[in-house]
Amino acid sequence: MKGEDETVVSPRPRLSLSWDDGHILAVDQRALPHEYRLLRIETVEQLTDAITSLAVRGAPAIGLAGALGVALSACRNSSGSGVDEAAVRADAARLSAARPTAVNLAWAVRRALTRLAGGPEAVLAEAMAMVEEDVTVNRAAVVRAADLVQSLVPDRPVRVLTHCNTGRLATAAVGTALGAIIELRERGRIAEVLVDETRPLLQGARLTAWELGEAGVPYRLCVDSAAAAAMARGMVDCVLAGADRIAANGDVANKIGTYGLAVAAARHGIPFVIVAPESSWDRELADGSGIVVEERDPGEVTGFAGVEAAPAGAAVFNPAFDVTPAELVTAIVSEVRVFRPHGSHGTSRPREVSA
Amino acid sequence: MKGEDETVVSPRPRLSLSWDDGHILAVDQRALPHEYRLLRIETVEQLTDAITSLAVRGAPAIGLAGALGVALSACRNSSGSGVDEAAVRADAARLSAARPTAVNLAWAVRRALTRLAGGPEAVLAEAMAMVEEDVTVNRAAVVRAADLVQSLVPDRPVRVLTHCNTGRLATAAVGTALGAIIELRERGRIAEVLVDETRPLLQGARLTAWELGEAGVPYRLCVDSAAAAAMARGMVDCVLAGADRIAANGDVANKIGTYGLAVAAARHGIPFVIVAPESSWDRELADGSGIVVEERDPGEVTGFAGVEAAPAGAAVFNPAFDVTPAELVTAIVSEVRVFRPHGSHGTSRPREVSA
Repeated sequence: MKGEDETVVSPRPRLSLSWDDGHILAVDQRALPHEYRLLRIETVEQLTDAITSLAVRGAPAIGLAGALGVALSACRNSSGSGVDEAAVRADAARLSAARPTAVNLAWAVRRALTRLAGGPEAVLAEAMAMVEEDVTVNRAAVVRAADLVQSLVPDRPVRVLTHCNTGRLATAAVGTALGAIIELRERGRIAEVLVDETRPLLQGARLTAWELGEAGVPYRLCVDSAAAAAMARGMVDCVLAGADRIAANGDVANKIGTYGLAVAAARHGIPFVIVAPESSWDRELADGSGIVVEERDPGEVTGFAGVEAAPAGAAVFNPAFDVTPAELVTAIVSEVRVFRPHGSHGTSRPREVSA
Repeated sequence: MKGEDETVVSPRPRLSLSWDDGHILAVDQRALPHEYRLLRIETVEQLTDAITSLAVRGAPAIGLAGALGVALSACRNSSGSGVDEAAVRADAARLSAARPTAVNLAWAVRRALTRLAGGPEAVLAEAMAMVEEDVTVNRAAVVRAADLVQSLVPDRPVRVLTHCNTGRLATAAVGTALGAIIELRERGRIAEVLVDETRPLLQGARLTAWELGEAGVPYRLCVDSAAAAAMARGMVDCVLAGADRIAANGDVANKIGTYGLAVAAARHGIPFVIVAPESSWDRELADGSGIVVEERDPGEVTGFAGVEAAPAGAAVFNPAFDVTPAELVTAIVSEVRVFRPHGSHGTSRPREVSA
């Protein structure tokens, strides 16, 4: 990413994404865990770059970044004669296309655009409201998910396995699945967290391990392929993960590896729980077969951090996400409900449980 | 590894492990794929170091290395008054303990020791015979495994998924599961190989990709956690893997991640085939629950190819192997038989099929 102004600040801001005097401030997730660095993003191009390079990542976070990006564009494309709507809509289209799988991005960009007629202040106010909403919404989802996990594993502190990063970095604050883990920890209900490193970009090793360390939650890191062995050894009471897009029937697109975890959890009778805001649901999709899965750069797989492991020119299969069928999901928890694809008594008919 | 004499040679030797004028010559598997380098190993300490650091790895290869190590010790511990048997047995015990999971190591060391009374020449002759046997045995197993895969997927060139490295590097020559893939390729029956990178030490990305490239077999590399997604997309006709130890009932200890692959393959009805010599069977173990799984250094997980990824001091769960129950294995192919844990018609009673 070129041209952005990088800042190291202390104390750390409350939000991992915010608006600051005409710019977007975002935690640079590429630099963690070795360095905590903020990006000051001044153009839509810089923002698109930050999203595609995963400096800003996590379905809720990229949604908010998209909304703030529309505000940034509206500010930069307004003059005495009003907003250049065509220019803003072109920027919005570019932002929406930065990553295809998470539905939150297109959703948030669309929502910010609804205020375009009100001028840049109105768009910014909407984006800022979405940031604050994200905090509230995730807080509600996290409490609900922690309640659910306690009801699923009532007799002891829980050993949770989690994948990728679903913490405050992936949202404005609080997090989703990782937020629920931290909520459970605050209730004294976490025994240990097993953290999948989450190849290829190691969001588990770099970001989740860092967030758990900051929060004082006991954890152990493992390679992704050790998760099934951990389940077989009886080391896991519950799997908690996030979502990038959820189809109407409860099929869940999430970070590559989630599907294999769900298959293994089902074999071992381990609850498999998704925590995601309602904005991650794509009700226009009947099921997961319609979800576009982003294929990313081969270099993510052939190496890491610039170190090449594979032979030069190795061909690669690098899907960034996979789709877990609803039948393998115990529950999908949002700010307003616990959706149980099998019903609360293990029946096969999907049903919604309001709570 | 300190003190060994490193040599780059051309043409490359026929065997990945051999005896050369009082020393052991071994391909240094840590240097691949970037450099093809031979280690000249002069002491048992250097050899133990080479085995624990995975310069020499693969269950059959470390067995042969153990046998050659006993010969090396016998040569160094003999004088006009004969062999110092106690010294050789102490070296043999150290070699046997270098890695605990693969049964081939202890088996091969024991077998070499049976010739100790005959002096160093007898021990060396036995070790050399074992090296040549490994070639013959693997050749037979590979032909049998290729026949089986053709019978399982009779209608088209096969898309195989494989894990870790089971090629000539992991043996004296030929290989096991990867040998079968190359045999199928020579028969014109391979469409594509999907290669799990095999974290933490990336034997798939470094070694299997290199061997496939050398052999001109089309392959794509993927992160381990993408294997289940590949199966769900219908990209895999058969999984082929090796074994480090097989219990009497057909439970298989193999590289971490094998179990998760087997669980996913079973869900998708994809044949899951193990190729391993008879020497990988441990008939004293009734089932896999008695297999000791080596836990390796946390640094293998916290970093990637020397780059630290996780926060300093991160705790780690790093089992080098897992155990796949026989019920998930379609067949175990050796030089003399195809063992089908479920019987050849899907019955649940284990039976042996001689062929």
